[in-house]
Amino acid sequence: MGASTVLKNYINGAWCSSSATTHLDIINPATTDVLATVPLSSASEVDQAAQAAQAAFVSWRRTPATDRIQYLFKLKTLLEEQLEALAQTITQECGKTLAESKGELRRAIENVEVACGIPILMQGYNSEDIAKGIDESMIRQPLGVTAVIAPFNFPGMIPFWFMPYAIACGNTVILKPSERVPLTMQAIVQLLEQTGLPKGVVNLVNGDKTVVDAILDHPLIRAISFVGSTPVAKYVYSRAAANGKRAQCQGGAKNPVIILPDADIDMTTRIMADSAFGCAGQRCLAASIAVTIGGARQPFTEAIADVAQSRIVGYGLNDDVQMGPVISAQSQTRIEGLIQKGADEGATVLVDGRQPRVSRYEKGYFVRPTILQNVDPTGDIARIEIFGPVLSLMHLETFEDAIALINSGQYGNMACLFTSSGAAARKFRYEAEVGNIGINIGVAAPMAFFPFSGWKDSFFGDLHGQGHQAVEFFTQTKVVVERWKDWTRQF
Amino acid sequence: MGASTVLKNYINGAWCSSSATTHLDIINPATTDVLATVPLSSASEVDQAAQAAQAAFVSWRRTPATDRIQYLFKLKTLLEEQLEALAQTITQECGKTLAESKGELRRAIENVEVACGIPILMQGYNSEDIAKGIDESMIRQPLGVTAVIAPFNFPGMIPFWFMPYAIACGNTVILKPSERVPLTMQAIVQLLEQTGLPKGVVNLVNGDKTVVDAILDHPLIRAISFVGSTPVAKYVYSRAAANGKRAQCQGGAKNPVIILPDADIDMTTRIMADSAFGCAGQRCLAASIAVTIGGARQPFTEAIADVAQSRIVGYGLNDDVQMGPVISAQSQTRIEGLIQKGADEGATVLVDGRQPRVSRYEKGYFVRPTILQNVDPTGDIARIEIFGPVLSLMHLETFEDAIALINSGQYGNMACLFTSSGAAARKFRYEAEVGNIGINIGVAAPMAFFPFSGWKDSFFGDLHGQGHQAVEFFTQTKVVVERWKDWTRQF
Amino acid sequence: MGASTVLKNYINGAWCSSSATTHLDIINPATTDVLATVPLSSASEVDQAAQAAQAAFVSWRRTPATDRIQYLFKLKTLLEEQLEALAQTITQECGKTLAESKGELRRAIENVEVACGIPILMQGYNSEDIAKGIDESMIRQPLGVTAVIAPFNFPGMIPFWFMPYAIACGNTVILKPSERVPLTMQAIVQLLEQTGLPKGVVNLVNGDKTVVDAILDHPLIRAISFVGSTPVAKYVYSRAAANGKRAQCQGGAKNPVIILPDADIDMTTRIMADSAFGCAGQRCLAASIAVTIGGARQPFTEAIADVAQSRIVGYGLNDDVQMGPVISAQSQTRIEGLIQKGADEGATVLVDGRQPRVSRYEKGYFVRPTILQNVDPTGDIARIEIFGPVLSLMHLETFEDAIALINSGQYGNMACLFTSSGAAARKFRYEAEVGNIGINIGVAAPMAFFPFSGWKDSFFGDLHGQGHQAVEFFTQTKVVVERWKDWTRQF
Amino acid sequence: MGASTVLKNYINGAWCSSSATTHLDIINPATTDVLATVPLSSASEVDQAAQAAQAAFVSWRRTPATDRIQYLFKLKTLLEEQLEALAQTITQECGKTLAESKGELRRAIENVEVACGIPILMQGYNSEDIAKGIDESMIRQPLGVTAVIAPFNFPGMIPFWFMPYAIACGNTVILKPSERVPLTMQAIVQLLEQTGLPKGVVNLVNGDKTVVDAILDHPLIRAISFVGSTPVAKYVYSRAAANGKRAQCQGGAKNPVIILPDADIDMTTRIMADSAFGCAGQRCLAASIAVTIGGARQPFTEAIADVAQSRIVGYGLNDDVQMGPVISAQSQTRIEGLIQKGADEGATVLVDGRQPRVSRYEKGYFVRPTILQNVDPTGDIARIEIFGPVLSLMHLETFEDAIALINSGQYGNMACLFTSSGAAARKFRYEAEVGNIGINIGVAAPMAFFPFSGWKDSFFGDLHGQGHQAVEFFTQTKVVVERWKDWTRQF
Repeated sequence: MGASTVLKNYINGAWCSSSATTHLDIINPATTDVLATVPLSSASEVDQAAQAAQAAFVSWRRTPATDRIQYLFKLKTLLEEQLEALAQTITQECGKTLAESKGELRRAIENVEVACGIPILMQGYNSEDIAKGIDESMIRQPLGVTAVIAPFNFPGMIPFWFMPYAIACGNTVILKPSERVPLTMQAIVQLLEQTGLPKGVVNLVNGDKTVVDAILDHPLIRAISFVGSTPVAKYVYSRAAANGKRAQCQGGAKNPVIILPDADIDMTTRIMADSAFGCAGQRCLAASIAVTIGGARQPFTEAIADVAQSRIVGYGLNDDVQMGPVISAQSQTRIEGLIQKGADEGATVLVDGRQPRVSRYEKGYFVRPTILQNVDPTGDIARIEIFGPVLSLMHLETFEDAIALINSGQYGNMACLFTSSGAAARKFRYEAEVGNIGINIGVAAPMAFFPFSGWKDSFFGDLHGQGHQAVEFFTQTKVVVERWKDWTRQF
Repeated sequence: MGASTVLKNYINGAWCSSSATTHLDIINPATTDVLATVPLSSASEVDQAAQAAQAAFVSWRRTPATDRIQYLFKLKTLLEEQLEALAQTITQECGKTLAESKGELRRAIENVEVACGIPILMQGYNSEDIAKGIDESMIRQPLGVTAVIAPFNFPGMIPFWFMPYAIACGNTVILKPSERVPLTMQAIVQLLEQTGLPKGVVNLVNGDKTVVDAILDHPLIRAISFVGSTPVAKYVYSRAAANGKRAQCQGGAKNPVIILPDADIDMTTRIMADSAFGCAGQRCLAASIAVTIGGARQPFTEAIADVAQSRIVGYGLNDDVQMGPVISAQSQTRIEGLIQKGADEGATVLVDGRQPRVSRYEKGYFVRPTILQNVDPTGDIARIEIFGPVLSLMHLETFEDAIALINSGQYGNMACLFTSSGAAARKFRYEAEVGNIGINIGVAAPMAFFPFSGWKDSFFGDLHGQGHQAVEFFTQTKVVVERWKDWTRQF
Repeated sequence: MGASTVLKNYINGAWCSSSATTHLDIINPATTDVLATVPLSSASEVDQAAQAAQAAFVSWRRTPATDRIQYLFKLKTLLEEQLEALAQTITQECGKTLAESKGELRRAIENVEVACGIPILMQGYNSEDIAKGIDESMIRQPLGVTAVIAPFNFPGMIPFWFMPYAIACGNTVILKPSERVPLTMQAIVQLLEQTGLPKGVVNLVNGDKTVVDAILDHPLIRAISFVGSTPVAKYVYSRAAANGKRAQCQGGAKNPVIILPDADIDMTTRIMADSAFGCAGQRCLAASIAVTIGGARQPFTEAIADVAQSRIVGYGLNDDVQMGPVISAQSQTRIEGLIQKGADEGATVLVDGRQPRVSRYEKGYFVRPTILQNVDPTGDIARIEIFGPVLSLMHLETFEDAIALINSGQYGNMACLFTSSGAAARKFRYEAEVGNIGINIGVAAPMAFFPFSGWKDSFFGDLHGQGHQAVEFFTQTKVVVERWKDWTRQF
Repeated sequence: MGASTVLKNYINGAWCSSSATTHLDIINPATTDVLATVPLSSASEVDQAAQAAQAAFVSWRRTPATDRIQYLFKLKTLLEEQLEALAQTITQECGKTLAESKGELRRAIENVEVACGIPILMQGYNSEDIAKGIDESMIRQPLGVTAVIAPFNFPGMIPFWFMPYAIACGNTVILKPSERVPLTMQAIVQLLEQTGLPKGVVNLVNGDKTVVDAILDHPLIRAISFVGSTPVAKYVYSRAAANGKRAQCQGGAKNPVIILPDADIDMTTRIMADSAFGCAGQRCLAASIAVTIGGARQPFTEAIADVAQSRIVGYGLNDDVQMGPVISAQSQTRIEGLIQKGADEGATVLVDGRQPRVSRYEKGYFVRPTILQNVDPTGDIARIEIFGPVLSLMHLETFEDAIALINSGQYGNMACLFTSSGAAARKFRYEAEVGNIGINIGVAAPMAFFPFSGWKDSFFGDLHGQGHQAVEFFTQTKVVVERWKDWTRQF
């Protein structure tokens, strides 16, 4: 690899050079080395992929589900065998630590495992005698060509919320990885190729908005799975709908965490630090606001500041590193600007992670863990998704106030509660208007057999990724009503 | 009732006069009598309804499902008690026969019955120990305010594909009936009122596109259920999506039926006549094209022509009438125009239902059963939804040709096959790209415990009305991940 | 009614006098009045019922589920209309208060409501293309004749854990009520008759062990649902199995409740009193042992003693009465003997309910609420089901000790925990080896849409009553594998 | 291997020599070579295994399901890698052809695949607000120690209908293979060991009825899965029940196949020959009676006789062999006696497979394919399970007669129909009182994601092996009702 390596697309079972005229450098955000170059493909390459996927659909759909899942079993084995190498790729292009990269891949594998259960998950249902002698059944059938448009922050996991289910159900897929981190998906598609998956079942087209729009407008593509920022998610949802497609679009988040006085502060601090600073805060389930109630304020504030200050930041491939860089220089600048904005709005920068010196990686796009104290609940910084390692602290009088704060937000991706009280947990679960709830959990990421349930502006659509809902999203129901004339002896 | 009766809206548990400045006459299509006048409400009335529905949601959502369904049990009883009166209302404003009106109401009641099962249908799922000591569960919670926008052809049934589920799941609802047939919903909402349903849970706003757009744009309304024509369905889907809402939008249809030589021609003819001419062909599951294969051609053509000619057309309230008028003069004119277009494209008008004399109802909007023979599969008339009692006959060489014809169509609402062959049925079920399949069935309407599964341009969205899918559409999943510190003796 | 009234059996849609030679008086346990006389039917009457049920099965099974449930909808309405009268009958023959009788009937009605959902609950599932061109489906079909053998303590509820599901699924039923309380079922079967249920679908045979054995041995009876004491439950399970039948048999219980120091003592006391003394302690979900931990001991002991002493005992038909008599003189004697046994084993009789004076009902079989303090965990009284209003108090050092006590017991019907700690609740739920768990709940009776999940010697079988599991118990799965030759043009 | 090899038991993760005093030779039925010697273990060895399994249960149950399934994923890989070797072992000890052995193992692997889906399959369900503020959930928890008692005919498949589900659900298992074919399970347990499965989770005890009885009576063993003959199945069911255990017991069969005149006779003959003679007829889904209707008689009789005569019989390890020996000399003698009995009852021995010469394997226990013609439907031979390669032909007047014949039988394992008629198929599916139905299928073996649904005397219990039902059998439901006091601000 290196600056001279130009990534290829994978269309109809072949690695093809893109006819792109524009290319982007793929940059290691810790070292700023150029890892390779990615082509920004054209709409015609999307069309080629869609045609190939449509052609492949004809026999893939007719391949029994029990056969289709064999490729997934193989993929699981290959992913496990290649876990280390894949994790390194993720760390190199995306910046997170190796442990984080491996964790992300483990989640990917879990989705492959669940999709191996398609023969049951895809079953329809049936009723005998809906009227005398008339039977009815519902069959799930695949849609055809589907597309997955993925973000930069989990290049090895997010496509797996969708793709394994799509193909297990008999669909064919076009993958569009983030142009900033295309190497991971490149490597994963190579593994898919090794499983012997028939050509055209999974296709990979590298590119940017041009590719996205071509996908959204292509008449052969039936369903869109998207994860990204809220404005783009809404754009994708809207344009897909205008084209008559089904779409599931995950957007941004601003995840509050409430810490009650009866919480275990040690545990809470440890978990919260992982949530706020893990993956350098670049995840849609990162804790971004910590709301203390009553006596929790002082001990938590002190403890989290300690942890934030002592977090080891550096190149994720190095063993002792606890946090890597953010994805890009622009991102670094934007995060630092938002920290300043917080200060301008009256917050105290209790721990300031701006302009850090990270020895040996001075050019890297690093922001150290940052704690803003006394953040104004009505200010912008309490609303804007920072997508960096910045935790805003607030203190509110009552638990009810804290829930009201959550429910007043634009997003509904996650909210967490730290407490030892069963009653508080129940009230929180019942009332918090977000789709993923953690109780003494910092990153309430649903397992692969649960839906990734963003609410409000964190999700557009009605069927989420993962598990049962992914199966529903990637199938269409066909209802059959049958009447057979009463048997009369004919012989 | 009568021209001087102005319908009211039902908002927050009260019948209120609309502030509308425009009103439409509701016309009995058989007699052309004016039955009453319907106001075309304004966006502000939608806003009032939405505010009321949002306010009602707070406690309705907190009402246990076992209590919520008691209103549905009562509604079922009331609907059964008032079946005759309701059926007369449908017949009067919509034109269909009394038997058809009753059948439609029976389907409505079935949906109420299924929605009575919400305590089970709405259950979430859960896993213990997703990791040591960590549990995860998924809970289904209602969305909030929802809206149902209904068409003219089944005023007593179609709202029931959605509304009973919406309220059983804890949502509140705004109903927008077709402005051409608002009397039926008026009567049904009166029954809902009699059940003692809390105010604001169901609201009724009469009106036209202004109301639709106000619903689509209202920030409090979370989900849209629509049934109508394909262009409007797509418009509603697109605009709802642009506003970030979930939507399920049923559109039009052009339903082909294949008749194989081994079909029982007598049974086929009887069923096909009911399918093509029932409800004067104004239903999205009406057979509109009959494709004969091989030897089926001649006997079926003769038999269906006989039946078409002998069908008794008249005012649906009269006992012996087998078919009523179409909904409006414009509709009558449009249908007659399309018959002529068929003739112009080369079809033979084997039975011509234009300009019929229907004694005592000379002014009524009648079109008699019409058979077009030798319809050109490539012509417009083979593609356009006529929405009237017109059956187009085609003859094709092979079963495969017939399936190809089906799959080349824009719509995917229904296709039926008449045969005695198990192999033909299986091939058809497997290959026909439509969502509702009938085998020796003329109107493959899914029971209330199956989804009404239109495909292609007959449906936009991913979750259909009725049964399980309605429950999914009207709930959002909330995932809860819980960790409770290992118990340590504290006392 | 009165001593001269002899109950009849209901076989094949007719009320028939039994040919029994032995009869029992049905005694009001509060007044000792004879309410009527019940025949102890013979095996030949069981045979008549079984033959009738088998004959009825032929067409009942062919009646669409959507039609079968109409009888249940009617039954719900009738039960609600007759609630007061039925409740009085229960109170008269069974002794509990009118409010308790109504509560019991409400649970019965809930099961009818759930069984109305059979069209969905009974659906099978299906897979297309298990191999190329081969499809597989599972259909649920009814078993045939089934039998329900009910105990005395909930004459209006327990048969409804089974019967509504049995008939909704297409089976026919023989009901055998307890010979001590047959009047309630007599009245309920009259309501069933009023619904117009076809003859033979539900049959009623009064009697005792002779009838039970005849049921167990009858070759036409396919499935047995039993609730009673553990020895009889095991007998029924074993004998049914020896005859090749499926069986679900609920037995006795000894339900412990743990009260942690962080429990709300007021709430706990109120709930515990209802659990221990409700229905005079004659229910399989009565709390029978209260284990206090740490500081909960003293306040709970004082509070529960107060409540026990002040409970108003009398004839359940009287308005202010909070607890009625036990079922019989023998039962009274037995309970008083067990109180003495507790004392003999070293317990303090803190509140002694023996030999109470209940004015106006001096002959009634009353035992007042009784509290045994310092009950020996290793003694008999800690193990034997008393089935009377006797609560045994224990104090243990740790929560772990209390869970160990629960898990060492023979029974597994219910255990409850009072706490405010989420961690304690999770540990309890995870570790307590009982099938029905209450957290801050005194009678953890599953709703009709959950299984009544006794474990260990509280249940023999694998599918419980109520909800999904009742449907599975009352249906057998039929798997169909289909291959239809590839279609070849034949015409 | 060889006569001097004495098999060991596998208890608590160690291979241990049995203390048995009696041993049996394991004989290759084709060559009569002694392959090894199997100990007939004692009750005390069952006790050791049960104690080990109980001890292992404590932490196995606490191992997250997502971790437990990793052993099954590994087992799938190992089974696939060792397929050839395992298939040879099956052929050597059991006699069937290598292709049949491989097919059997493929079915085993499919069950492992399905059991890998346990994280979803084992989910419980839950309801919020069953009353205001009260929630209810159902959790599936494992039972503890379970046992699988397997027959000789599918040593590599039948234990997999149960074992993978048992362990995936968190139970521990004792396997008791048939003492005639213990080598296969020996090899499979070695693979389980290679997966790193914790000790005690799966245990293997070789032996005969002594071991079976010890299992049935052992107080630690909670559930029994059995497959064998009907008398033993009933014995096991009855004795397990008498000991309060849950049990699922599959028995024998006598599977009729109906051939209608509109069947494709070539296809039917090929499929029927495989069904009747595959595995030398030693399977519970072997076709044993072929009933022709009308014109199907003559062509089918001729064709099946041809195929029977030409079938290549020999040692299953040899490439071209189509059928191997039966399991033992006794079995051979018994089958030949039943053929004679058929002749004595009036049947024509159209193809006589008795006393065949199989060159190079003269001592082997061979019976060649045999056809009995004009078998008396009322005779013994029409009722007795032969369990050998003998097909009885009957001719009946009508389809209804044939269904009546099926329904008059003792067994209900399988019935098949050959036809091209959809109506005949529907009638058959609806009316045939057997649990596994084939339409143009000869061996209607349910896929692993469907229950193996024997009815009548072919199955005792209510939950079958494989898929969903296996999961239900190997878990117990725990219902939790929770109330948390309304939150009141405490801080």
